[in-house]
Amino acid sequence: MPDAKKIFLTEDESPKQWYNIQADMPNPMHPPLHPGTKQPVGPEDLAPLFPMELIKQEVSQERWIEIPEKIQEVYKLWRPTPLIRAHNLEKALDTPAKIYFKNEGVSPAGSHKPNTAVAQAYYNQQEGVKRITTETGAGQWGSALSFACQLFGIELEVFMVKVSFQQKPYRKMLMNMWGAQVHPSPTDKTEAGRKILAENPDNPGSLGIAISEAIERCVTSGDAKYSLGSVLNHVLMHQTVIGLEAIKQMEKAGDSPDIVIAPLGGGSNFAGIAFPFLHQNFTAGKNIRCIAIEPASCPKLTKGEFRYDFGDTTGMTPLIPMYTLGHNFVSAPIHAGGLRYHGASALVSQLLKDGLVEAQAFQQIPCFEAGVLFAKTEGIIPAPESTHGIAAVINEAERCKKEGVSETILFNLSGHGHFDMGAYADYFDGKLDNHHFTDEDLKTNLKELDTPTIA
Amino acid sequence: MPDAKKIFLTEDESPKQWYNIQADMPNPMHPPLHPGTKQPVGPEDLAPLFPMELIKQEVSQERWIEIPEKIQEVYKLWRPTPLIRAHNLEKALDTPAKIYFKNEGVSPAGSHKPNTAVAQAYYNQQEGVKRITTETGAGQWGSALSFACQLFGIELEVFMVKVSFQQKPYRKMLMNMWGAQVHPSPTDKTEAGRKILAENPDNPGSLGIAISEAIERCVTSGDAKYSLGSVLNHVLMHQTVIGLEAIKQMEKAGDSPDIVIAPLGGGSNFAGIAFPFLHQNFTAGKNIRCIAIEPASCPKLTKGEFRYDFGDTTGMTPLIPMYTLGHNFVSAPIHAGGLRYHGASALVSQLLKDGLVEAQAFQQIPCFEAGVLFAKTEGIIPAPESTHGIAAVINEAERCKKEGVSETILFNLSGHGHFDMGAYADYFDGKLDNHHFTDEDLKTNLKELDTPTIA
Repeated sequence: MPDAKKIFLTEDESPKQWYNIQADMPNPMHPPLHPGTKQPVGPEDLAPLFPMELIKQEVSQERWIEIPEKIQEVYKLWRPTPLIRAHNLEKALDTPAKIYFKNEGVSPAGSHKPNTAVAQAYYNQQEGVKRITTETGAGQWGSALSFACQLFGIELEVFMVKVSFQQKPYRKMLMNMWGAQVHPSPTDKTEAGRKILAENPDNPGSLGIAISEAIERCVTSGDAKYSLGSVLNHVLMHQTVIGLEAIKQMEKAGDSPDIVIAPLGGGSNFAGIAFPFLHQNFTAGKNIRCIAIEPASCPKLTKGEFRYDFGDTTGMTPLIPMYTLGHNFVSAPIHAGGLRYHGASALVSQLLKDGLVEAQAFQQIPCFEAGVLFAKTEGIIPAPESTHGIAAVINEAERCKKEGVSETILFNLSGHGHFDMGAYADYFDGKLDNHHFTDEDLKTNLKELDTPTIA
Repeated sequence: MPDAKKIFLTEDESPKQWYNIQADMPNPMHPPLHPGTKQPVGPEDLAPLFPMELIKQEVSQERWIEIPEKIQEVYKLWRPTPLIRAHNLEKALDTPAKIYFKNEGVSPAGSHKPNTAVAQAYYNQQEGVKRITTETGAGQWGSALSFACQLFGIELEVFMVKVSFQQKPYRKMLMNMWGAQVHPSPTDKTEAGRKILAENPDNPGSLGIAISEAIERCVTSGDAKYSLGSVLNHVLMHQTVIGLEAIKQMEKAGDSPDIVIAPLGGGSNFAGIAFPFLHQNFTAGKNIRCIAIEPASCPKLTKGEFRYDFGDTTGMTPLIPMYTLGHNFVSAPIHAGGLRYHGASALVSQLLKDGLVEAQAFQQIPCFEAGVLFAKTEGIIPAPESTHGIAAVINEAERCKKEGVSETILFNLSGHGHFDMGAYADYFDGKLDNHHFTDEDLKTNLKELDTPTIA
C-alpha cells in the first residue's frame, strides 16, 4: 500500500525483542563511576535502586533482549503505533521530500513514555517490589509510570517539579486517576528538599532536585525501588520498539528513510526511533542520518562538554559519561519541560562523540510555529517537546526543496499536546521568548565542576 | 485474528458510501414544519442556511450516498478508526460478556464530530461558500468544524456557550489554532443575544441560545451559511462511517454484536454506530438491541414528549418532530455538555416511537465511576459524554454475569476527555451531584409550548 496515509502493523507483527545498541557500538560507552570512590559502579551499587533484571539490562552486551509476554500483552493496548505519511505537511511546504512520522501520542499517557514504564513496573513486580518512587517534570513520565504501576499493583510516589505541579493540574489529575501520590518538589519530605527550601522557600524546583528527592526517598524508605524515565541504557532500550516497528512499516510503505529525526531531553525518545536504524548503519551498510534535536536554551549536545557529571542536582547518582551543561544548570523556563535536562544519556553522548549521530538546536518560537503548521495540516496537536522535531523536519524539507532532491524523512512524534494548550495560548498571545545560550553561560555553569573529564 | 486486541481496517477497506436509514424505516419521520406557516418546509426554506447538496441529503430516500473522494481523502487523516476489544474491562467486571468499542477519540478534534464537519465544509466549499456560522457547547463541535473549515479555506465564526467558554479555555484555544473566531454566547452581536442580555446580563448561555445567535448571524449577514453538528438527517448520515467500519471489523474479529450502545445528545453519535446495525435488523433478519444513553438530568428519550418543537430557544428553526423536554428547558450543569440538549433527532425519535431502538438514562456520578474504571483498565480517558455509554455497557455486562450469558456488546467511545480533566477533578473532589428530573419538571417545561403534538 505505497499510497496509504497510515501504515499499521498487526499485533502479530510487533517486535518480540528489544534492540540493545551496546552490542554494536564501535566504541563502548565509558563506565559510570561511583560518586565517592570514582571507581566504576557495580551491580551492588545499583541494587538499592533497581530490580536486578533491569541492572542486568543496563550492562548487557546482548544484541537482542526478549520482551516478556506480559509486557507484549500490555503494549497491545496501544501498540503497534501508526506510521503516518505527512502528505498535507509536504504539500504545505511544497517540498520534494517525503515525510513520515510515528505517532507515539496514541498511548495511555499520550507519549512514548509508557514503553519503558510498563517494562519497569513489570520487572519490579516480578521481584516483589510493592512501592516505587520517581520524579517528573511536566508530568509525561509521572503519568506513564502511574498507569503502569496501577496495572501491576505497585504503589507510586511522584516528586513533580513544583512549577509544573502548579501550571499543569491536569497532568497531576491523570496521575491521581491512576492511583499515584504526587508531591510538589522541593518538599519537606526529604533532606535534599528541606535543604533547598531552607535556602529559598520559593524555589520553583527542577528535574535535578526532584531526582535527588526521589532517590533519597527510595534509599531511606528501605522497601521501595526507584525508577527513571530516560537517560539510562535499559530505558533507551525499551524504547527501541518504536524504531523496530518503524522499520517494518517503512518496508510496507515501499520506502526507507534517509534522515531520522527526534527531540532529545535525556535521550529515550531519540534512541527509541534512531537506534534500530543505526543498527542498519552498523550492520547493513546503510548511511541514515540520525539527528537529535534540542532546545537552543538547553544545548548540551551542541554546546555542552563531554565529561563525567551527576544525573541529579545534589550529586546522589553515579557519575555518568555524557554531554552536559553542568548538573547545577537551570534551564530557561521554556514550555518543552521534557527537554530542560542538563545532560544526555551516555549512549547517545558516545555516539555523538564518535560522529555516528548528529545534533541540532532550535529556538522555542520557531518550534511553536512548526507545531501550529503541523496541527493545521495533519490535524494533530504536538507536545511542545515534539515541535522541536517538527521544526528540524521542516528545515530539512526546505533544504531538499532548495537542492531539488527528494529525500525521505522520518520523525518520531513523541506525544500530543492536549495537556499543554496553555503553552500554545502563550505562543499566540506573543508571550514566548527565544533564549540564547552563550559560551559565557557554559563557562559559568561548568567552572565549579570537579568531576572527571574524559580523554 | 480473533484474539487481537485492536482490529484495524486498511484505508482501502473504508466505506465508500454513507448509509441513509430513511430508505429503510418502516414509518418515515414526520415532516419538519415551517415555524410561521406550520406547513412542511421545502428546500427553498432551508436554502439560506445550507448548501443545496446537504439539503438534498436531508430529504433523500436513497439508501446509499457516495462519499466524495476528497472527503475520503481527508477521512484518512484518522479513519478507519480502531475497533478495540476491552479485555481488561471484561476481566475487571468478571463478566462472560464480550465488550468491543470503536475509538473515535483518535480524530483531530478528539471526537466523532469531524466525520460530518469535513463533509459539511466540503459541500459548502463546492458551492462557493466563504463563511460559516455555528454554535458549540463544550467545544467538541466547534473545534471539529474549525479544523474542517481551515482545510477547505472557509472562515468560521463560532458562538460558544458562555459558561463553557469560561470553563474550557483550551477548547477555545483549539478553535483559534484552526483559525476560527469564537464568541461567548449570549453576545451583543445579534438581536437574540441582545434581548437575552437585556433580561439578564449574567446569562450563562445555552446551546439553544447559541443556535439562535448563529442562525441569526448567518441569515442577516447575507454571505454566510450555517452548520449544525447533530440532530439533522444529513449530519447523522455522515456519522454512519463509524458503524459501517465496525461491521467489517466485527466480521474480522469473527464476532457480531447482540447489543450496540452509544450516548445521545442530539443523536449523531448514536446514529453513527447504530444505524448500520439497524440496517442489518431491517434487511438481514438480525435482532440487535440498539440502546441510546442519555443523562438522567436531561431525559428527553425516557421522559420527554414526542411532539413538534423548535431546535433553538428563540424559535428560529423549523419545528422538528421529536422527543423533547421543551425548547426552553435548561439542563442541570452536568459535565457532559454534549448531552444537555433539550431534544433528539427526528430520525432517532421516530425509531424510538416505533420500538426499533431503546433508551436508558444514567446519573452523572455512576458515569464518572465507569469512566475511571475504563481509564484504569483500558488506558483511555473517556469524555464525560462517553462515560454514559460505558456506564450502560457495565450495566449490561453485569446482567450477563447474573444471567450467565455471553452476549457481545459494542459501544462507541465518542471522544477522549483530555480537555475535560477539570470534570474528573470535581468528581474526585466529591463536588459532583446527581440530578433528578421529575414528572413535575416535565409539566413545567412543556406547559407553555403551543407547538403541534403528533397523533
